[in-house]
Amino acid sequence: MTDLPDGAPPRGLEERVRDARGLLESGVDLWVATSGPAGPHLVPLSYLWDGSTLLLATARTSATARNVLADGRVRLALGRTRDVVMVDGTAIPVDLADLPTGTGDAFAARTGFDPRELGGRYVYLQVRPRRLQAWREENEIAGRDVMRDGRWLA
Amino acid sequence: MTDLPDGAPPRGLEERVRDARGLLESGVDLWVATSGPAGPHLVPLSYLWDGSTLLLATARTSATARNVLADGRVRLALGRTRDVVMVDGTAIPVDLADLPTGTGDAFAARTGFDPRELGGRYVYLQVRPRRLQAWREENEIAGRDVMRDGRWLA
Repeated sequence: MTDLPDGAPPRGLEERVRDARGLLESGVDLWVATSGPAGPHLVPLSYLWDGSTLLLATARTSATARNVLADGRVRLALGRTRDVVMVDGTAIPVDLADLPTGTGDAFAARTGFDPRELGGRYVYLQVRPRRLQAWREENEIAGRDVMRDGRWLA
Repeated sequence: MTDLPDGAPPRGLEERVRDARGLLESGVDLWVATSGPAGPHLVPLSYLWDGSTLLLATARTSATARNVLADGRVRLALGRTRDVVMVDGTAIPVDLADLPTGTGDAFAARTGFDPRELGGRYVYLQVRPRRLQAWREENEIAGRDVMRDGRWLA
């Protein structure tokens, strides 16, 4: 499940911050966890990272959209199970027409799909990370916080 | 993000069931979503699949364990973001001493870690899938259910 060397020493904070930024910039898909009356929900979605917020899009009728409209708290996972970046934040719904055209174009170019072409069925979700964590294996659980209260720790 | 051919036709039900069973059997790690007062939680964990239930283990003090003790509903994701198996079910906590020795041995062999050696800090979680879904890309969203009410559909 991993191509990392067994028993690699834990990374320091600066390396984790650099790796987390790198993954946010290079990744295309992530996992989105939300919660609602039907329990926890989890789906893969594509995203655009602009350096400070993640932009997602989902159908208005999806469990993810319904959950977020009632309770915006989300937890996102990027990367593989043994090299993760976890994001806690609040998702803010943005109507298709309210997103700047250039941002919508960037989202479409990045993800390969353009929700604006789907006749109003979709909504964007903007997530500004409040906390970010980065770890690989058990020996990196300690020191996993790389952002707190919206601020990078290094 | 995918090594699948672009525009591959959607798989039929029987192929999806076969692929989902194959992934359950061959995989080692999954994503676990739970919910609680602090919002949605999400972490990667290792698992053992015995053909009908998934066995996980987590620290008793973890957010996952605390959430499950209050509300057992979980949603699990196996596979990559563009070739997923999603599991909805209820997690039942099992004390270390209450798991049959052979099952504990199989868990340790499979996951590479043995919670029984960690001095009572861990608890097992047993999840019997109620619903299973399998999809790759957008064109497989329709027909994604491969198990309902605990029964494989093919």
